[in-house]
This record gives sequence, C-alpha cells and structure tokens, in this order.
Amino acid sequence: MSQADEARIKYTLDESELPTQWYNLLADLATPLPPVLHPATGQPIGPQDLAPLFPMALIAQEVSQERWIPIPEPVRQVLRQWRPTPLFRARRLERALDTPAHIYYKYEGVSPAGSHKPNTAVAQAYYNKQEGVRRLTTETGAGQWGSALAMACRFFDLECKVYMVRVSYEQKPYRRVMMETWGAQVVPSPSPDTEAGRKVRAEDPQSPGSLGIAISEAVEDAATHDDTKYSLGSVLNHVLLHQTVIGLEAKKQLALAGDEADIVIGCAGGGSNFAGLAFPFVADKLRGTRPALRVIAVEPTACPSLTKGKYVYDFGDTVGLTPLIKMYTLGHSFVPAPLHAGGLRYHGMAPLVCKLYDEGVIEAVAVPQLATFEAAVQFARAEGIIPAPETAHAVRVAIDEALRCKAEGTRRTILFNLSGHGHFDLGAYEAFLAGKLQDYAYPEEKVAEALQRLPKVGV
Amino acid sequence: MSQADEARIKYTLDESELPTQWYNLLADLATPLPPVLHPATGQPIGPQDLAPLFPMALIAQEVSQERWIPIPEPVRQVLRQWRPTPLFRARRLERALDTPAHIYYKYEGVSPAGSHKPNTAVAQAYYNKQEGVRRLTTETGAGQWGSALAMACRFFDLECKVYMVRVSYEQKPYRRVMMETWGAQVVPSPSPDTEAGRKVRAEDPQSPGSLGIAISEAVEDAATHDDTKYSLGSVLNHVLLHQTVIGLEAKKQLALAGDEADIVIGCAGGGSNFAGLAFPFVADKLRGTRPALRVIAVEPTACPSLTKGKYVYDFGDTVGLTPLIKMYTLGHSFVPAPLHAGGLRYHGMAPLVCKLYDEGVIEAVAVPQLATFEAAVQFARAEGIIPAPETAHAVRVAIDEALRCKAEGTRRTILFNLSGHGHFDLGAYEAFLAGKLQDYAYPEEKVAEALQRLPKVGV
Repeated sequence: MSQADEARIKYTLDESELPTQWYNLLADLATPLPPVLHPATGQPIGPQDLAPLFPMALIAQEVSQERWIPIPEPVRQVLRQWRPTPLFRARRLERALDTPAHIYYKYEGVSPAGSHKPNTAVAQAYYNKQEGVRRLTTETGAGQWGSALAMACRFFDLECKVYMVRVSYEQKPYRRVMMETWGAQVVPSPSPDTEAGRKVRAEDPQSPGSLGIAISEAVEDAATHDDTKYSLGSVLNHVLLHQTVIGLEAKKQLALAGDEADIVIGCAGGGSNFAGLAFPFVADKLRGTRPALRVIAVEPTACPSLTKGKYVYDFGDTVGLTPLIKMYTLGHSFVPAPLHAGGLRYHGMAPLVCKLYDEGVIEAVAVPQLATFEAAVQFARAEGIIPAPETAHAVRVAIDEALRCKAEGTRRTILFNLSGHGHFDLGAYEAFLAGKLQDYAYPEEKVAEALQRLPKVGV
Repeated sequence: MSQADEARIKYTLDESELPTQWYNLLADLATPLPPVLHPATGQPIGPQDLAPLFPMALIAQEVSQERWIPIPEPVRQVLRQWRPTPLFRARRLERALDTPAHIYYKYEGVSPAGSHKPNTAVAQAYYNKQEGVRRLTTETGAGQWGSALAMACRFFDLECKVYMVRVSYEQKPYRRVMMETWGAQVVPSPSPDTEAGRKVRAEDPQSPGSLGIAISEAVEDAATHDDTKYSLGSVLNHVLLHQTVIGLEAKKQLALAGDEADIVIGCAGGGSNFAGLAFPFVADKLRGTRPALRVIAVEPTACPSLTKGKYVYDFGDTVGLTPLIKMYTLGHSFVPAPLHAGGLRYHGMAPLVCKLYDEGVIEAVAVPQLATFEAAVQFARAEGIIPAPETAHAVRVAIDEALRCKAEGTRRTILFNLSGHGHFDLGAYEAFLAGKLQDYAYPEEKVAEALQRLPKVGV
C-alpha cells in the first residue's frame, strides 16, 4: 500500500455512482415475512386496507418480491445533492484506541436535515405527489424524521403537518424551527387536533407523549382527510428499502479502500438506518458468501425491543389504530423513560429486522446511556463529528468491538452507520458533561405485564 | 451539453485535488499594504513585537511576498476529511427565481464545526504545536470560530480557552457545549479572568460584550502566559491566506461545470470567508485577465465597516492592546446593535480586503437584517441547506443579482460562499418567522464621533 493510501481517510463516489436501484431484502428471505393483520378480523390486510394511508406505489413496494427496485430519476436528482455520502476511515479514533481494527463509518449527517432520514422522505414525497396527494402527515420524536419530511415536502410542493412528541417539542425547539423554516406545520403531541390526542390528554394532561401516540395522531389525521396521506419514517418494508442506498454505497466504498467488513453495526429504533446500512451486507450472508459476517443492531437498555421484547403481533401505535405487525415489542402501551436518544424510544422494531434477529442472522446488543455518551465524546474528540445520541449507540459498540480486537490481537474491519449529527442534541451533551445523566434499564416485569394486554390474534 | 450535465448539481473534487499550496494575494498587489504600527511609537512593528502572540511561522506568513505557500502535510491530512468541499449549482433556486443566471455556491458547512473557520484553525493549531506552544486563547462571537479552534486544538493536543462574547454565550448555549464537547474551556466575555475584562465589567456590569472586548481578553491572556499563544479567526493576512483553499477549489470546480464566474460574493465580518473565496479570483483581476469580474463583499447595515467606515489606522480590539492597523473602521469603541449575525459585528475589516476596496478592485454592499433572513428562508426552501445568518448576507446579494439578470434578460454566472450552516442560529430564524426581528442601520454620526477618538498616528 502506498503512502498516499495509508493517509487516506475518505472514500467518496462520484454523483454518477449514486445507486439506480434499491435492494429489496424480501427477495432473499428463505421464508416469507409474517403477514400484517387487520386488527378487527385478524386476517392479512390487502392493498385496499392501506390505501387511505399510503399511495399505491409505496403499498406495492411494501410487498414487492423484486430484488432490485428502480429509484425514480426525480428522487435521484434530489438525493444527488448530498449523495453518495462519504465513507470515512476513523484513523484518529483507531490511534486513540490503539487498536489493530480498521474502523469505517458511513456519514449520513451530510444531508441538509442532518441524518439518513431524507433517503426515504424524498422518495415518499415523490410517490405521493405523483398520485395527486396534496398534504402529508407524520410523527417525529427527536425531530430527525420530521425535519427530513418537512424538507422533502417542500421540494415536491406538498403541505406537511408534523406531530412532534411533546417532550422533544419542548427540549428541542430548534428542530421545530428547522421544520418551520422549511414551511411545515408542527404541533406538540398529544395535541387537541385529533381524537387520539384528545383521548390521551384527557387521561393524562401532563403526558410527555411518545412516538406511538404521535403515530396514532398522524394516522388519524391522514385517514380523516381526503387530500392527505400518512408518511412513516421507519419500521415499514418500503422505508427500509429506500435506506439501502447507504449500504450499497458503503460496499463500493469499502472495495475502494481494499477492505471487506467483518462487523457491520447500526443503532436501531425503528430499524431504518440499521437496515439501510446492513441489508446489502446481510444479502451476502443469506446467500452464503459471507457466513462469518457479524451484523449488530444496537438499542438502548431503556428501550430494549429486540433484547428484552417478545416476537409477537402488536400494534404499531399506542392507541391501536394501525394494523397488527409481528415484531419484537415491549408492548404498544410502552411509555419510555426520559432518554436523550429520542429516536430510539419506539416500542417495536421493523418486521424485517425482527425476522433476521429471530432467525439468528443478526445480533442485537443493548447499551446504557452513560457509556453511550462516553463513546460519543471520545469519537467527537478524535474525529471531529459530534454524533446524534441515537447514533452514539452504534459508536459505543464499534469502540467496544475495536477494543476487543486490541485485547485479542486480531485485526477486524468494523463498519458502522454514523446516521446523523448531534447539532440539535447538544442539550443532552451538556447534561452528560455536567454529570446529570443517569443509566436506566427497562425492567423485564414491565414487558411481561404489557404483553398481557396484547391483542390475541395471529400469535 | 448532455442531459446528464443539465441535471448535475454538485461538482466534487477528489481528495487528491485538495490544494497543496495557499495563494498569497500580497504577491500580486501593485503597492505594498500599509504597515502595521506599534501603538506607542507609531513605527512599523517587527516580528519580535508579534512573537509573544504568534508562532514565528505565522508571523512569517503574515508578511510573506511569496505567491504560493505550501500547505504542510499534517494540515492537509486533517482538512481532507471534509475538503475539497462541494460546489453546488443552485438549480432549484434558479427555477424559483425564474432567472437566466447560473447560481453556484461553495459549501463550507460540511466541516465538523459547520463553517469555513477550520481551514485556518487547523493550520494555526499545527504551527503552534510545531513551535512548542501548549495552550491557545481566542475570542468568539457567534461561536463559529471558537468551535473551529476548539476542534483543531483537540486534533493537535493543545489546550484551548475561548472568550465568548457574552450575548452569544447566553443566546447560543449549544455553541458553547460544542466547544466543551471538544474539550475547550469557554468563558463569557467580559470575564473576570483578565484586566481588560475586569475593566469593562467595572464600567458596565451589564456589558453584552463585543468581539473587540473578547479580543482584548484573549490577547492579554496569551501575552501574560509563557506557554500560551493567541489565535485570531479573521482579519490578519495569514488567516485570509489559509482560507484561499476555498477559492482555489471553486475555480477548478467551476471549470468542471464549464462555467466562469461573472460575480463573486461573500459576506464580510472580519473578511476571511470573503477573501478565501474571492482572492484567487481577484488575482485574475489584478493580473488583467478578468477585468469585468465583479467581486462583492456584503456586510450588515448594522455594522457597515466598509460602506460607512473610514480607511484609517485603528486598534484591532476595543481596549487598545493590539497594534494599529490601517483598515475601514467604525472606530474601536464601536458597540454593535443586537444583531443575529454575530460574526459580522466587528468594527474593522481585514487590511487586505480594505486595500482592495479602497482601490476599487472590489465592491461592498450593506444589507438590512429582514431582507437577509427573507433570502435565507427562500434559499433554505429551495436548496434545503439553512444558511448561518452571516452567510445569509451573501445569499441576499446573490439573489438580488440573479433577479437583476432576470430584469435585464442577461445570463451571468454568480458564485457565492455558503460559509456556514445555521444549525446553531435557529433562534434567530424563530424570531424572524415570528416577526420579531427589526432592521437597524448604524448612524453615520456615530461613526464620525467614534473616529474622533482614534489614535493620531500614521494617518
């Protein structure tokens, strides 16, 4: 390897190398994904059941068995502003850890919204616009998804209403202002604007809100307005599909670096950034060409859907408006502890991620809050970029694996998704640096209790 | 032009095309820059006068007549993480304005600190480290410069103390946390830590601070500690020199786009981002190869150093600790109106920029606050990226020039420096969107009055 190669820290791809197709993991599953069920009948739902919420193009993608799905040119035209995103070799972090591991991170924070979320927001806005939709509703926790959709709606001339989890609305005014700057309407959830919101407020006027509640509100809003559809930022197959540009690019970039991943890591709330990076690598594992590859989803101990939840049918929202989905869940009545990784506070997990975990194709790890912020600060001081608190979960496990390489004296290639920057989360860093944060592990009893209240269908 | 070219919006350069040399405008001036004077003697200062504050390598660069100065490899190794930065064609903005103009912007917000400032921070930290310095002090207004130096010091294992203008310290806690995350010590200025700070606090306990006061504090701290030097984020020749990577890259990128700039625009506070983009283009103008090229520095009407100030000798700071510099100044006793573009609240301007303005090589325009934010929101809705309030001044004039092209039916190529993003300035956007901002023009009488109090040397 030449001296120039040894100094290289950034692997970029030309705009022309932006993928032209998304990778659909459904095509490579040995057995089909458990069907999504209608909550009233317990029967698998069909396209017509989803039509009030989503445009037909996305419903088709949700169940498509095609391995490769073309990315429409107008979507690529928007994505190419910041894609392909850079892949970095974390050489300063490697030196700080004194590890023989090669650590790479794919940096999705270069999008104007600051995370990977626009990858699907842009596609969703496009398909809705194509089918004559005038207005989109959605929920947002930490604000990354709401920001992404607000921006995407602006590009395709759609109105956008965002139900923002109240605790985030109050803790992160800048995220709200960002959405408003892009022209979206933002309300704290639970809000008085929907039946679902009014119901929660009646029961608990001080409710901090949750992603589940906000989903209930956004879904109701879309279902009750003819010109309006709903847009989800994670969990669903089509959302994960749109995120696969991340992993497709990363594979090309690792090849440029002359390296091959031994361990692929992503944080997982709903599962979309994890899946986006991981699925194109998982494909190799499913096909048997990379049997030793380890793929790790990282979640907080405060919301351990994969590591403590059960693989059963549950609602996607809190109130019970959505279809039933088979997934690892803490129970849809889950109310998260105050945790700074707002994007990881969801009770469930993407069904595709759950199936891979159930079959042992991927691993999952839960990490506590303090160790996560320690890793984030160590990363920021070595690499400059300040990760979002969600992303910091992936950083923690990447560092842990690199330290294990050091202890074992083995040289592995670690790749993780730096899914977003923490510019709007510095309040959390402030609390951490001031010693004001605590660890919290969600108790197993509570999971067992919540699962008692699950619907008795399809289990 | 092929269809692919017509869709192209991003002009990237490979890491290997990061400039290897900085461009030094001093080499191309027809007459020398007026000397910097010792305040006590009125005589030109020598290297030994600056030695308590700066390492010799930077003092040498300050007066060098070499046209090209090599960029040390360790500096390039850090810069290549985010450089070359992208040049974007603002196609969606062009369509929104319905202008025949081609609008390009060089996006410096991709650095981890979010602005162009690391271009010089990294170089300064490197040279100080090379000469055995252990600790750097500096001032910061909006926080962009302080963030950049905090990060650069971390990379070269230097301590960093930042005197942050009190009003910004209070308005922008996240900028402070960002610096602390990178390990810097940050205090509000005026502080009790220096004579200069204590003097101002005694006279005005409620002082909101100013860049001039914060400079006084940082300079005093460095001058009174043996292991400490001072680092300035703008104004000085070597700072502008380090920023020329921006313009050098932009020229290559415009060539890739098959375009040539007719108008080059940058906002100007101390002058460094403006100079960084503009000087490599100004070089062509000075050599007579691009006589019609227009180069425009944009400042706020609230701090109109170039457009309302006088070209005289003045102190660089408020208290009068620095050497005397010939520059357009509002008087060193200038206290800015509360204005959200914190980085543009400096009473003076880089001497190199002032000389070019005095000789008619470049133009200057002052724009009011409301029109500036209007332009910023219009830009954000078209292009996604939310500009820093400082940067928005350049956006305003770029849009004005594009609209003039439309009115005149002429097709010009406009290039501006998108020097930083506004992620830490969304409080200002919130105030603007809520109709709470006002325009303010600094009164000419006040300038005349302040100039009465100038030192009577070298005029």
